[in-house]
Amino acid sequence: MKVDGKPTRTIWLEADGLTVVVIDQTALPHRFATVQLATLDEAARAIRSMIIRGAPLIGATAAYGMALAMRDDASDEALERAYAVLLETRPTAINLKWALDEMLAALRNRPRAERLAAAYARAAEIADEDVEINAAIGRHGLALIDKIAATKKPGERVNVLTHCNAGWLATVDWGTATAPIYMAHDKGVNIHVFADETRPRNQGASLTAWELGQHGVPHTVIPDNTGGHLMQHGMVDLVIVGTDRVTANGDVCNKIGTYLKALAAKDNGVPFYVALPSPTIDFTLSDGLAEIPIEQRAAEEVATMTGLTADGRIETVRVVPKGSAVANYGFDVTPARLVTGLITERGIVAPTRADLAAAFPERSNVAANPRAAE
Amino acid sequence: MKVDGKPTRTIWLEADGLTVVVIDQTALPHRFATVQLATLDEAARAIRSMIIRGAPLIGATAAYGMALAMRDDASDEALERAYAVLLETRPTAINLKWALDEMLAALRNRPRAERLAAAYARAAEIADEDVEINAAIGRHGLALIDKIAATKKPGERVNVLTHCNAGWLATVDWGTATAPIYMAHDKGVNIHVFADETRPRNQGASLTAWELGQHGVPHTVIPDNTGGHLMQHGMVDLVIVGTDRVTANGDVCNKIGTYLKALAAKDNGVPFYVALPSPTIDFTLSDGLAEIPIEQRAAEEVATMTGLTADGRIETVRVVPKGSAVANYGFDVTPARLVTGLITERGIVAPTRADLAAAFPERSNVAANPRAAE
Repeated sequence: MKVDGKPTRTIWLEADGLTVVVIDQTALPHRFATVQLATLDEAARAIRSMIIRGAPLIGATAAYGMALAMRDDASDEALERAYAVLLETRPTAINLKWALDEMLAALRNRPRAERLAAAYARAAEIADEDVEINAAIGRHGLALIDKIAATKKPGERVNVLTHCNAGWLATVDWGTATAPIYMAHDKGVNIHVFADETRPRNQGASLTAWELGQHGVPHTVIPDNTGGHLMQHGMVDLVIVGTDRVTANGDVCNKIGTYLKALAAKDNGVPFYVALPSPTIDFTLSDGLAEIPIEQRAAEEVATMTGLTADGRIETVRVVPKGSAVANYGFDVTPARLVTGLITERGIVAPTRADLAAAFPERSNVAANPRAAE
Repeated sequence: MKVDGKPTRTIWLEADGLTVVVIDQTALPHRFATVQLATLDEAARAIRSMIIRGAPLIGATAAYGMALAMRDDASDEALERAYAVLLETRPTAINLKWALDEMLAALRNRPRAERLAAAYARAAEIADEDVEINAAIGRHGLALIDKIAATKKPGERVNVLTHCNAGWLATVDWGTATAPIYMAHDKGVNIHVFADETRPRNQGASLTAWELGQHGVPHTVIPDNTGGHLMQHGMVDLVIVGTDRVTANGDVCNKIGTYLKALAAKDNGVPFYVALPSPTIDFTLSDGLAEIPIEQRAAEEVATMTGLTADGRIETVRVVPKGSAVANYGFDVTPARLVTGLITERGIVAPTRADLAAAFPERSNVAANPRAAE
């Protein structure tokens, strides 16, 4: 999407065709800065320190990290070492391992002399594939927005509420939940986004608001407490969120607080959609509440806030009394009964076991008969 | 309740019997400081600048403000002026006008020489009456907590979730939503409170957490996004919140985000109670969603956060990109269908027109026939 009016991805190559450039997402929304990655270790550090984040972007960065490793040393040992170093950067990120496996498969059986070029070619494909998947999600979601827009009077806007950042910044381009929004905006639909602040890490206020603003999409940041009131008063036409994991029966694990918005959507007849690339579906699970372990994160994320002071410094302030305990659950599970539909790269799928299996037969069969796949 | 182990109210008199002392709530939770009010203007400033807040405490402070005015000048003109100055400090606070009217009624027909003593006496009564009402709310709510405690195994705690600050700091003592909690804790019930942070003004993280901590009540501060997840996993036994206004049919207007917690409570079979002194019931309204106007507050409350820096300064930081719009609705309405019961000074009342009218016949009759009351 655009930054300062210029089409930009979250990861690209310098003119030398070798040096990788990413946006320093830790400086957003107050400062736009890029970081050059010239070595394996720089790529690993960018992932580990969350200069970049978001499962698809982590995968693409790791792929380029393998390519960077080949610049110095294209030996088998260097390949194995790069794989190990990158895999350790964010151990729970599914896309990371997938991207590294793809790179290993593309390079392992090639002569050393071909590995550098092959690595850059496969990394570029991985990045492009992510863009393609998100664009497909965008086209399917756009149809939903178009339908709502058709019911509006001239000048009335389509209001979409989103939670956290399932945006362009979490992927290579387009984002997942944001892809339909950007496409609608680009084709001239009068669209406006309510972006939940998304405490404790504020990805809505700091990342979603920033990327929508850079691309020129009208938006309003709201406290996480506000969405229910807006829906009660007809101010939200559609909710679209992302997800970290969807079970075979359509339960949706996403950033903490998503469940509360789904309840409010149901209570007020507002459609609640979840946008996802299909690898996010875990066909081995069939009860999100019982089976998905919810990560508890550092207390500091709740106890403090980081922002820009009046004199332009980035400062972290404590907002909870010393001595008060805090709890920081990273995610919650929205039961399938509250989800209107799943926007995937193959179209909109109902959150039921039968519909998911029908849409992705090649994956659901394997999961249903794990022995048969061995 | 206690501060540093010492029983304390939110407003008291110095040893001279004339100077009023309040807690500077703008410095909480990071610094406990008191402010002396020796004149009408100092009392007015304390209310206006939100050194003190909470409808009952505003009423008590305004009453003492009238008494302070009588120190300088006990004339009719001074009385009228004090009334006018104090009424302007927080125009929408219902308790403020009520307390000022009470003071005016108590002083107007007395000789000047008696007004100073009478003013302090009536102000003290107003403060004591608030304590009594809250204690009665506490006793009725305690019965609910006792019932839950009786179902627990040894060592298991009773978990109460609350939103915003309907605590001791908003009243003269006990608080409304917190009164049952303090009483349970004081009698040895193993009680624990989840305190919603309550963005954007953070009254939960900064005030509720502080007062619970000072009194020694075990508690955990959680982001506003977290309550649904806790209820899904059986970690909340009971929700108790305060309210700014209850309609004749039991709709509850309270701090923004209350509705989302009520939805989660309903979805998970968690009892959802609202604690209130009966003057909070507005018998002239019968549809909270349609009839209660929701105040929109300053953008800065959402766009910034204030807290303590690592080196001990109070600093305000911006957490939303420049150029992003923000919306700041102060309250939402929880429909009566989501409310288990109203904890009032006369007992627990079902949120229905019939039950509210039966519990408060003297007020509901007047409202039902406004002409007859004229």
